[in-house]
Amino acid sequence: MTKAIETDLTRMFAPRSAALVGATDSTTSFGGRVFRQMTNFGFPGKIYPVNPRLKELAGLTCYASLKDLPETPDHVGIIVATERVFDVLADCAAVGVPFVTVFSAGFSESGTPEGRERQAKLLAFGRQSGMRFMGPNCNGVINFVDSFAMTSTMAIAGPRAPAGNVGVVSHSGGLGQVTLMWRAQEIGLGISYEASSGNEADLDTLDFARFMLRSDATDIVLMAIEGIKDGEKFREVAHEAAEREKPIVVLKLGSTQAGSRAAASHTGAIAGDDDIFDAVARQYGLIRVHEVPQLYETAVLLRRRRWPKGRGAASVSPTGGNVVQLADAGDTFGVQWPEYSAGTQAALARLLPGYGQVSNPTDMTSLATGQRELYRSALETIASDPGVDVVVPIFASGTTDDLQRGADFVTSCEKVAAMLWVGGCTDDAAFTRKDLVKAGASVYRDAMPCMRAMRAAMDFGDYVRLQKSGRANPERPAGMDREAALALLRGFTDKLTEREAKHLLAAYGFPVTREKLARTADEAAGYAREIGNAVALKIDSPDIAHKTEAGAIRLAVHGDDAVRAAYAQVVEAARRYAPEARVNGVLVQEMAPRGSEMMLGVIRDPVFGPIVVVGLGGIHVEVLKDVAYRAAPVTSQQAGAMLSELRGAKLLDGVRGMPPRDKAALADLIVRLSWLAHDLRAEIAELDVNPLVILEDGHGARVVDALIVRTGS
Amino acid sequence: MTKAIETDLTRMFAPRSAALVGATDSTTSFGGRVFRQMTNFGFPGKIYPVNPRLKELAGLTCYASLKDLPETPDHVGIIVATERVFDVLADCAAVGVPFVTVFSAGFSESGTPEGRERQAKLLAFGRQSGMRFMGPNCNGVINFVDSFAMTSTMAIAGPRAPAGNVGVVSHSGGLGQVTLMWRAQEIGLGISYEASSGNEADLDTLDFARFMLRSDATDIVLMAIEGIKDGEKFREVAHEAAEREKPIVVLKLGSTQAGSRAAASHTGAIAGDDDIFDAVARQYGLIRVHEVPQLYETAVLLRRRRWPKGRGAASVSPTGGNVVQLADAGDTFGVQWPEYSAGTQAALARLLPGYGQVSNPTDMTSLATGQRELYRSALETIASDPGVDVVVPIFASGTTDDLQRGADFVTSCEKVAAMLWVGGCTDDAAFTRKDLVKAGASVYRDAMPCMRAMRAAMDFGDYVRLQKSGRANPERPAGMDREAALALLRGFTDKLTEREAKHLLAAYGFPVTREKLARTADEAAGYAREIGNAVALKIDSPDIAHKTEAGAIRLAVHGDDAVRAAYAQVVEAARRYAPEARVNGVLVQEMAPRGSEMMLGVIRDPVFGPIVVVGLGGIHVEVLKDVAYRAAPVTSQQAGAMLSELRGAKLLDGVRGMPPRDKAALADLIVRLSWLAHDLRAEIAELDVNPLVILEDGHGARVVDALIVRTGS
Repeated sequence: MTKAIETDLTRMFAPRSAALVGATDSTTSFGGRVFRQMTNFGFPGKIYPVNPRLKELAGLTCYASLKDLPETPDHVGIIVATERVFDVLADCAAVGVPFVTVFSAGFSESGTPEGRERQAKLLAFGRQSGMRFMGPNCNGVINFVDSFAMTSTMAIAGPRAPAGNVGVVSHSGGLGQVTLMWRAQEIGLGISYEASSGNEADLDTLDFARFMLRSDATDIVLMAIEGIKDGEKFREVAHEAAEREKPIVVLKLGSTQAGSRAAASHTGAIAGDDDIFDAVARQYGLIRVHEVPQLYETAVLLRRRRWPKGRGAASVSPTGGNVVQLADAGDTFGVQWPEYSAGTQAALARLLPGYGQVSNPTDMTSLATGQRELYRSALETIASDPGVDVVVPIFASGTTDDLQRGADFVTSCEKVAAMLWVGGCTDDAAFTRKDLVKAGASVYRDAMPCMRAMRAAMDFGDYVRLQKSGRANPERPAGMDREAALALLRGFTDKLTEREAKHLLAAYGFPVTREKLARTADEAAGYAREIGNAVALKIDSPDIAHKTEAGAIRLAVHGDDAVRAAYAQVVEAARRYAPEARVNGVLVQEMAPRGSEMMLGVIRDPVFGPIVVVGLGGIHVEVLKDVAYRAAPVTSQQAGAMLSELRGAKLLDGVRGMPPRDKAALADLIVRLSWLAHDLRAEIAELDVNPLVILEDGHGARVVDALIVRTGS
Repeated sequence: MTKAIETDLTRMFAPRSAALVGATDSTTSFGGRVFRQMTNFGFPGKIYPVNPRLKELAGLTCYASLKDLPETPDHVGIIVATERVFDVLADCAAVGVPFVTVFSAGFSESGTPEGRERQAKLLAFGRQSGMRFMGPNCNGVINFVDSFAMTSTMAIAGPRAPAGNVGVVSHSGGLGQVTLMWRAQEIGLGISYEASSGNEADLDTLDFARFMLRSDATDIVLMAIEGIKDGEKFREVAHEAAEREKPIVVLKLGSTQAGSRAAASHTGAIAGDDDIFDAVARQYGLIRVHEVPQLYETAVLLRRRRWPKGRGAASVSPTGGNVVQLADAGDTFGVQWPEYSAGTQAALARLLPGYGQVSNPTDMTSLATGQRELYRSALETIASDPGVDVVVPIFASGTTDDLQRGADFVTSCEKVAAMLWVGGCTDDAAFTRKDLVKAGASVYRDAMPCMRAMRAAMDFGDYVRLQKSGRANPERPAGMDREAALALLRGFTDKLTEREAKHLLAAYGFPVTREKLARTADEAAGYAREIGNAVALKIDSPDIAHKTEAGAIRLAVHGDDAVRAAYAQVVEAARRYAPEARVNGVLVQEMAPRGSEMMLGVIRDPVFGPIVVVGLGGIHVEVLKDVAYRAAPVTSQQAGAMLSELRGAKLLDGVRGMPPRDKAALADLIVRLSWLAHDLRAEIAELDVNPLVILEDGHGARVVDALIVRTGS
């Protein structure tokens, strides 16, 4: 992870002047296409083509070298053979160019050692020179706000699309500029900026997203990425998005196995494990989607930056089937359809005499036909219901005027609203959704994308409120002693035994089993008497991590003789299993009280650092893969959310005659573990608390076994 | 369940003459709108408006009554006040009209007792008269093939859309005719017939689907339904679809809770439990989707009726990001991306010198730009790879000619192929996907719908092949004695005890525990000695279904005295639990051998009849809801599929030190249970085999406990 130097990218996206090294007059060459887009896009600043083979290009003076330019351009594009890139970069540095876009390929994306070496050299060069650059192997930037484009894409070749408030960031040019940006424009969205970052030797998708978030011209950022390289920067940018109330919607490509394979062959992006990415994106308030249309469809509503206060939706429809489809779609995304209040029912009864009890969503089939004013009144009535947070009126086919009024309603509604228009325009076949979306209205053609966007607005609103309240910041519980834990860790270079791991966990407030290390059978018998009742005996050896596998464990041992015999058996089993193992002695331990076995763990993600994992014990983790993840540290709210994500969560609530378990204690321990993982991230490679027994509600929990692996071991 | 009289609906959809009772000259009234659509749709036959208040309508003679018409029309539409519907129907019957569409509302959809009564009367009238009719509360039929429309929808008001090979069936007019049919036409699909069936007092969506399947004009049927009323007809129609190799794609509205509520208020359709519908639809080879666009997007490919031979896909793309998105989408739907064969690699190496090993899907970014012939050659090369079953070339933006060539490729390709065109047309902005789809090509704008359709084609192909092979027909295993089972059931009117239920299961070939019914403690001790080892003692009473709850069970009892004591305890516990219970005695039973506990059951679905349920025992069924369903009887292939649908299926494969279990025996018992459920469907209301212990592979299984509830009890 490199912490990028922060730079204001304004002069990259809106340079006062720009040069293109490798500009040509060919309509098929890459350099020719980029040059043509630059000159055709209405850029008000100076453009300097650089090509030693030409004197003039499209009426502009063509220069042999950057050094010959009459001024230092703010932004230089480079489209030359791979082996010449570094010469041009040296020229850029020599004249003091601040921003460079390296279009040329032949770097890490080639998958060859030479390619990777070239890319490392590029990064080093940038760091040394202080220049910031995009690429290599990228497709540049488009700025609709200030009319600057430096890219080869044909997606801006037609009539100039109007600027808007949606920012687009992608690794891939084809996907980002065509499948996402151009298609978003086709449904009526306006784009502020677009960046296709390619191999990201320096500036990455997060830098571009941050620039867009900070610009007044952008209200929402759509990202189609192949991975994230810097988890900390990801967290910072997400935090800033919530602070500014500008959502980031993210599509992570290569989220499946075959996808990952293709991603690896395309750029050098490091794709973290998808489950972890998913959990962390949610944790940081990002909106994750799974295909390109979901990116721009979500933006149709969220670009307005209005956040519902709750999950309650209402709808009025002129057709029955469509209202059922909308209700289904709402349920799919956890949006609720509350019963209307008595006041609303009374108002509706006055409007629709003889209709009877009105259910939500509301099918007005026979009443609504041709009754525009009645429809509008019913809509306003349900919108003012106190239990309704969002309103989704349905329109089938209608006149331009009908549709325009519908769009006006959703735009001016006091509640967050979107119009679901499923049909056509009866008096102007050329009138489409694009006309309404272009004018700023939230209009959908289908129920699913509409309700997906509603849920996203609800989630982002929740997150913004949480962050404003300060509850999005993890709070350090009392009774955690980092220094003591570090002192304990010192002296270990490898694994910690169960006993040692428990000492460390105890320093972070974990309740552990009572236990003592016996070095003789007599000591063991003595300790067993102290503990009382039956005890467990377990080998204590840094070389035997899996004690059960070694057979070096005896449970529920009771009485002096039995304890002495068990001591001998445990030592003997350990000897047989690993003759060379260092043995500290035998741990004499209270038997764990009855409860539900959980597994808590910490793994290290190359991108996001220490990740806390929780699952129910046994088959739930190992076979059913029923686990939840979060990046450390976590808030108590997130710890609770992790538990509710488990399919087996109900097992903690008291089923099949078992009492409910102490979920509060469990959530507290998840938080503590997350701080331990965070505080000692440089020291601990892996950590398992397994089993952690959760006792009856109000009785806490007990660490029965644990394992810690040091970094570098 | 009513078995509908089979009728050829040709004269309903393509009448020689049609009358509309309630035709008016008003542009806003329902009758006026339907009449206008009838006359404007180009119908070549005679149209007879019937309205006693008018002499003439749009240049046609208007009749006071059906009895005044010069001939008997094949199809009569009725748009009159609810209370007058029966008078008009009497007129229809009097002149011998074969087909009627009742548009009028006020029947079961009103939710009132009078409405339901009227609907019952309607059905009775139809049965008695022999007339077949659609509705009430429906929106009629549209026949693009023969130019007949009797419907109010504005969706056919514009220029006449060309006929095509896609049939559309829906309960709802708004959803079926606008959201589905009109929108399908907007992307270039042609419709053969459309039917919006409303309340379905007589003809239902399955009747219309069957008519369309049998018509040469239809190659695929899209259904947007709120439920199915007749499970047997559903099976028959699905069977015919596979036989004719014409897929049915089905969207079931009201599949979620809120959706179901709205559905209940819209029509009288009975919505079965959604999990059961889902399982049965799959079992019968239907393609289920979850939103309207998925219906018509699936049809873009499947209307061509070509079925891939396997799951292997390949793609070539001019842009990297899009190929990753396609790979992800393929993985989402279980489509595979096989490595290219050595022969393909060699051919590609000749085409693309220096490119190195080519992976699938193939990103040709730098090579493909402007290299149309090269792209085409690469495409043909991968299409001929023996491991490739389907081909999905990606196009970004291109000229009309480029795009037309792409469409021609996928249409003429020897493999099943679809084109993914994500961008625009560079030389004609008005050229869209609609132009290509209209001409018959399978062209998609987005990766997800494209790969969803590919998977659907693969699944339907598998099902068609299965059905042709005869393996789709459940086969009756040997050793099932229906007569013996019936004889056992006779004499029971209520629940069967464990012992009695096991006798019945044994008659169908289930291996049950060795056991005897003891009536005294001494008998029990004697039986225990016969069985040897430890035994279980359980109360045998028709009035105590839950023996564990009653405490009337003792496990692992060993030795004469212990058995005698246990006998007394079990009897005593039963007395305490249910003093009035009839007690047959105490069952002395061998202890079940070690194995995995499963739950097998039968429930009765009001639509689909007996449904077999399988799940792992304990928390898996009760808490994790990890179960699989099928309608009885099932094939062995389906029994295996049920097991693989369980999330916990891996637990049977030998995890955590347990040996693999006898899954073949388990699958055989699922098949046997399904036949039992089918054979005795009139006799058995509920059946539980719980636990069924599955032993080590090769050692079979053992029924440890079972419960049967008789119908009517």
